[in-house]
Amino acid sequence: MTSKTIRDPIHGDIKLEGLFLDLIETPEIQRLYNIKQLGFAHLVFPGAHHTRLEHSLGSYHMAFQTAERLNLNREEKNLIECAAILHDIGHGPFSHTLESILRNTFNVDHVDLTEKLILGDYSIYDSKEKKFMASSCVDEILDKHGINKREIVDIIRGKTHKKPYLSQLLNSTIDVDQLDYLVRDSYYTGVAYGMIDIERFLQTLTVNENNLAVRRKGVSVVENILMARALMYSSVYFHKTVRIAELMLSKTIELIENVEPFEYFRMTDAELINDLKTMNSFQHEIATRLKYRNLFKQAYSVSESNLDERGIEAIRKLDDFKLRREKEIEFEEALNIPKGHVIIDIPKNELHQAEPRIDKTDIKILDENEIKPFDSYTPIGGAIKSRVIPDWIVMIVTDEKYRDIVSEKADKILFK
Amino acid sequence: MTSKTIRDPIHGDIKLEGLFLDLIETPEIQRLYNIKQLGFAHLVFPGAHHTRLEHSLGSYHMAFQTAERLNLNREEKNLIECAAILHDIGHGPFSHTLESILRNTFNVDHVDLTEKLILGDYSIYDSKEKKFMASSCVDEILDKHGINKREIVDIIRGKTHKKPYLSQLLNSTIDVDQLDYLVRDSYYTGVAYGMIDIERFLQTLTVNENNLAVRRKGVSVVENILMARALMYSSVYFHKTVRIAELMLSKTIELIENVEPFEYFRMTDAELINDLKTMNSFQHEIATRLKYRNLFKQAYSVSESNLDERGIEAIRKLDDFKLRREKEIEFEEALNIPKGHVIIDIPKNELHQAEPRIDKTDIKILDENEIKPFDSYTPIGGAIKSRVIPDWIVMIVTDEKYRDIVSEKADKILFK
Amino acid sequence: MTSKTIRDPIHGDIKLEGLFLDLIETPEIQRLYNIKQLGFAHLVFPGAHHTRLEHSLGSYHMAFQTAERLNLNREEKNLIECAAILHDIGHGPFSHTLESILRNTFNVDHVDLTEKLILGDYSIYDSKEKKFMASSCVDEILDKHGINKREIVDIIRGKTHKKPYLSQLLNSTIDVDQLDYLVRDSYYTGVAYGMIDIERFLQTLTVNENNLAVRRKGVSVVENILMARALMYSSVYFHKTVRIAELMLSKTIELIENVEPFEYFRMTDAELINDLKTMNSFQHEIATRLKYRNLFKQAYSVSESNLDERGIEAIRKLDDFKLRREKEIEFEEALNIPKGHVIIDIPKNELHQAEPRIDKTDIKILDENEIKPFDSYTPIGGAIKSRVIPDWIVMIVTDEKYRDIVSEKADKILFK
Amino acid sequence: MTSKTIRDPIHGDIKLEGLFLDLIETPEIQRLYNIKQLGFAHLVFPGAHHTRLEHSLGSYHMAFQTAERLNLNREEKNLIECAAILHDIGHGPFSHTLESILRNTFNVDHVDLTEKLILGDYSIYDSKEKKFMASSCVDEILDKHGINKREIVDIIRGKTHKKPYLSQLLNSTIDVDQLDYLVRDSYYTGVAYGMIDIERFLQTLTVNENNLAVRRKGVSVVENILMARALMYSSVYFHKTVRIAELMLSKTIELIENVEPFEYFRMTDAELINDLKTMNSFQHEIATRLKYRNLFKQAYSVSESNLDERGIEAIRKLDDFKLRREKEIEFEEALNIPKGHVIIDIPKNELHQAEPRIDKTDIKILDENEIKPFDSYTPIGGAIKSRVIPDWIVMIVTDEKYRDIVSEKADKILFK
Repeated sequence: MTSKTIRDPIHGDIKLEGLFLDLIETPEIQRLYNIKQLGFAHLVFPGAHHTRLEHSLGSYHMAFQTAERLNLNREEKNLIECAAILHDIGHGPFSHTLESILRNTFNVDHVDLTEKLILGDYSIYDSKEKKFMASSCVDEILDKHGINKREIVDIIRGKTHKKPYLSQLLNSTIDVDQLDYLVRDSYYTGVAYGMIDIERFLQTLTVNENNLAVRRKGVSVVENILMARALMYSSVYFHKTVRIAELMLSKTIELIENVEPFEYFRMTDAELINDLKTMNSFQHEIATRLKYRNLFKQAYSVSESNLDERGIEAIRKLDDFKLRREKEIEFEEALNIPKGHVIIDIPKNELHQAEPRIDKTDIKILDENEIKPFDSYTPIGGAIKSRVIPDWIVMIVTDEKYRDIVSEKADKILFK
Repeated sequence: MTSKTIRDPIHGDIKLEGLFLDLIETPEIQRLYNIKQLGFAHLVFPGAHHTRLEHSLGSYHMAFQTAERLNLNREEKNLIECAAILHDIGHGPFSHTLESILRNTFNVDHVDLTEKLILGDYSIYDSKEKKFMASSCVDEILDKHGINKREIVDIIRGKTHKKPYLSQLLNSTIDVDQLDYLVRDSYYTGVAYGMIDIERFLQTLTVNENNLAVRRKGVSVVENILMARALMYSSVYFHKTVRIAELMLSKTIELIENVEPFEYFRMTDAELINDLKTMNSFQHEIATRLKYRNLFKQAYSVSESNLDERGIEAIRKLDDFKLRREKEIEFEEALNIPKGHVIIDIPKNELHQAEPRIDKTDIKILDENEIKPFDSYTPIGGAIKSRVIPDWIVMIVTDEKYRDIVSEKADKILFK
Repeated sequence: MTSKTIRDPIHGDIKLEGLFLDLIETPEIQRLYNIKQLGFAHLVFPGAHHTRLEHSLGSYHMAFQTAERLNLNREEKNLIECAAILHDIGHGPFSHTLESILRNTFNVDHVDLTEKLILGDYSIYDSKEKKFMASSCVDEILDKHGINKREIVDIIRGKTHKKPYLSQLLNSTIDVDQLDYLVRDSYYTGVAYGMIDIERFLQTLTVNENNLAVRRKGVSVVENILMARALMYSSVYFHKTVRIAELMLSKTIELIENVEPFEYFRMTDAELINDLKTMNSFQHEIATRLKYRNLFKQAYSVSESNLDERGIEAIRKLDDFKLRREKEIEFEEALNIPKGHVIIDIPKNELHQAEPRIDKTDIKILDENEIKPFDSYTPIGGAIKSRVIPDWIVMIVTDEKYRDIVSEKADKILFK
Repeated sequence: MTSKTIRDPIHGDIKLEGLFLDLIETPEIQRLYNIKQLGFAHLVFPGAHHTRLEHSLGSYHMAFQTAERLNLNREEKNLIECAAILHDIGHGPFSHTLESILRNTFNVDHVDLTEKLILGDYSIYDSKEKKFMASSCVDEILDKHGINKREIVDIIRGKTHKKPYLSQLLNSTIDVDQLDYLVRDSYYTGVAYGMIDIERFLQTLTVNENNLAVRRKGVSVVENILMARALMYSSVYFHKTVRIAELMLSKTIELIENVEPFEYFRMTDAELINDLKTMNSFQHEIATRLKYRNLFKQAYSVSESNLDERGIEAIRKLDDFKLRREKEIEFEEALNIPKGHVIIDIPKNELHQAEPRIDKTDIKILDENEIKPFDSYTPIGGAIKSRVIPDWIVMIVTDEKYRDIVSEKADKILFK
């Protein structure tokens, strides 16, 4: 069988053949090299330009290695390895950056596009591209190799499968997606917190009554992975400056009328920025500022522990998307600030919708043939769950020139 | 003094203050995070998305460390550190990819734009961007801090300076630019050949009668660096598939009428690709194919050692840009191939113009107060000079569907 | 000033000059390359042959870097850097292995010998060595350079100093000793848990009212270090097989009559083993078995959570050294096992005597000019404190051939 | 099958089962953890305490991986993997340090002992150890598993085998022994020169007509390995200070009367040093000085290029072991220096006897079904062959107090 070896700085050589060699050449997979894994993280960690393509390859490789260890059969291997390599093909520009706005406004997310692409219900090409390209698309490749597309979608969605461990391999507290991204994001940001011991983890992984479990001697490596994840969230994924750039971009989309969400989802990072440059002044401005890293500044920020009950209640109301925008308009009008130049950030719910794994520690430990919860072995999981990320309940960002005035009036306008 | 610490995966923490903190916030420097360091290398080495920004920071850091070791005074430090951080601001999209075509057609290269930007003779902004941006440009910052702009340009150009070691630190067989890029490119490609011992090298570096020299005990570390460079050229920088993507992009520019070269130089990677998508069919096609990594294929390739004298002579003629294009047209017409779909590559001269360091080994060794040439200590330098890179004297690439016919007719059309 | 650069795989180049160049050549420091950092850990982690010499150099280097960051004056620097490089010179063979037995029997530990050596009250040489050696000893070098020896001893002992931060730099929850050993032990064992971010930690360290503190933004890096330490304890430092080898060696010393403790402390690993080979059968046997890694096996082990109150009480009694030996003799007599071939391990108190830092998390956080406890920022510290290390309250080890019988009778003999 | 996983800092997890699990527990293999891989290199590179045990495990792992890639059958795998894990069991204390003296005096080397141990013709135990140990020895394990012991010896000796590639895997210009030691020695010394790309090398290795060959695309990786080896020789293996310690130890053996060579070969590092301490004054002195790193100093050194023909001839005579000792006695008598305190080093022949691979580059390249010599692809191999290691043709070392007088009189006494 023809095979191809790709050099990955994280996992070394990754070998692809047959079905996977075909998949890697589809436009859906190749498009991913145009989408940065960590959105705007490179504005703070200048090495972090890695893309969803490398991560998809790495997730495939983790699935491959795990499937070998667990001695899965060829059919199971195909399912989990396809699901791993395809699980991100629906990601929009700058990865998670626009998820929240599109979910709030249209109730769709990147997994919906992933599903459509796998089932062949949507095209990754725009109208003009199609005529230049003869490559097979993902759904065609899966059909050619006789792979059940619906099962792959189910695994990606984490739906209960007759073999729950297949779903769990890609959707659980510790899954192959995470094994790859923690190490990869560490490597490219230069923040060593995510450097976990993949080899040791794979050694302790097992299947017990159709569910994934970790052997007793793997408790430490799980503690290590959970802690690594927690530290990466607070230090990288929820870095305030990165968040500001994301808020700026989201606001441009929010203020466009008549968005067709999948149109935006299928764009690349570059195409979105370019599209914004063809629009009105606000979008054009933000696109230019992002190009030259000329960001809004934090004018106000408060942590939950510094608010009283009434204050918390006032903020929780702003979880509602429309009420939040109304509050921003209050700022704009009261302080004479142009439209879109004041952004209120209420991150908590958004984070937990986008990353439901963030504080889960529900791993099953197999200890002399008995299954016990991870938390019965160590208090670390519990501590991680009660660790607060991010450390602000509300933040307001604005152009540097409005910073002082917003800072001064924020309490009054927010809590009046 | 305010300072800022940036985490770099290669050098760890890089600290910036004063002048350099100002420079890092100019649009000229920030634009560099939109320009990939290795053009299309990520199409073969999927980790290689790093940009000229990180490299500029890294070169600054190498200059900083070297200046400390050599005990330069504050004024000298400012000059070499400014030159290091600014030396790439004129780089066009995809770094070196378009250099050859623009040099051939317009006799300008990225250093010309670098010079214009430093001297304030050109603006990095396009007409619309300007109104959104209030940041100071490079020339304003240099003036504000009283830095001699002309001296910086001279150091970047490698012009003989009254203190030749300042020029040599940025333009010599082993310079700070190289110390950074060898290690950085290794790290992001995952190809370990460039992993040199920077610390050991800096320890052996010295200034002798106003010229840079390496102490006797540094011979091995220099052998190591030269070998690393040679291996990176043959394995990464001149990888055939990367070259094919570069040829495709260059051909799109070559076939545009009325190019304004600096217009193109100041674009980002994304802006260039987007610009191509607004053009005629050929440019639009290539931009689409590059987006999805749908590349031309090699139809023909021969090494110098497999050609007789007459053959070599025929190929050397094609060094001339216009004759080469004429030969391509012969292919197009003879084989009924659309315009631009056959590309002839004659890399040698181009490589040596773009990278004059590639086979230089003229390092001075200081041995008990006497200066001797590096080559008198080891035969490795000589061997590297006679090592052939790349290993083809001519290659023809084309669309997969014309591959067989081009392959069959190549000898006849090339050497008739 | 003459200087010397030493290449360390952990910290890169370490530069020594003046006082420190003199110290590094003393017999007290050089002897440390004959003493393994992790006792018998190489029997489980075959890469772990690193010695107290590298660790002493590394601790010096950490002290040097910290002192630079904190801007200490030359006198303070000398004190903390001397204390760091000398803090382990009193370590006996196999580092901590024999500490417990010698402390229990003679109430001395390695810091007592360190003190004697620094003050010049004891000689590192045995009677014959002296005549071959002309090197200056540590106390002579300190006198020559006018260093206050008593202050160094105080810093090493963690005694309250007029400048408490000097003591804290070497004796606190997070000190320079630990910064070195976590990373070093990780590197040589290949267990990545100890890979902490030293650079980021040093950036956030500060002195507040004469006490060490960590700035607010350093909370994550401290979480990371504490977790790294906890995982290294459970995975490496308290690995069961390593513990068995240590118990075997300790038993040989315990069963020698008339031990002169400092005689043993000043031996090297090799000298101790050789000494045992000149003794009676039991000592000779154990020395041979350690040479060929022919270890006792675990016959019995129970965790605290699996014992009732009465059981725990019975075990706690065996904390007393003599009662423990009596219980071992019960086993020997009841089961007809030769002297020394049954060892009862009750690790908890021993661990907390030897490593009082193990579960401390009392770091001061400086948050906008106010000092608050670390635990008010994160629940991770608390969780680490309640994490149980090691996971057995009592273990019995014996020769493979007595394993079954000991296993069978253990409950009865232990708890009768 | 029972299996055991060992964590190696170089290769990650190494899994052993069956035959190899048995072998790893033999006293011959376990003894190797008492023998440092690089003799006295830790006196210069303080991290270099790694032992022959790790290297033997690593060589086994490299053999295992190579055998997988080459698709060898189970019998072939057993042969090459046994040969790899056993190839160093005959190594004497401090590895290569004493080879030269024992070869010169008794015409035996460590491979002779390796052979005896594999065939069961010699015991690794001394007279007293035997009674404490019940472990099976190597020859018994091989018999138990039905392995042909003579074939293993032949592979280790590089004797032509009916399947030459099996011999070549362990004895050729690039073999599994070297793949391990270059990377391992780099890791522990902190000198990065040996960091080769094992994965890439294994991908290009193949068997052609029963001989090992490297595919065309592997030329660069071979260049890299050869260069790495050359640099490790000049920077680490032939470091002058390391050499001085080795000369001191060799001299102690040379001056013992009635040496039984295998008695010495089977000692550990520690046992040899201890043995010297029981002898006469000179041996006792050297053992003490090595313990505290109190080394002789270089008093004289000259490179071949600085000698005329007559001078070179005079030195070449001293290749003869007895003539060299006579010359040393001339120094002792003329300058009134105690016996053994002047050592003349003539390294060249010794090096080439011990390391015949050092300048070999005879690799076969498989290029489109044709075998061509490596040197026809690149001039690097040729350059490495003509690179001079070490850079002195003769060196004289002595006690610091005789350094000046020896330095002054050296030319006269050497060349009179």
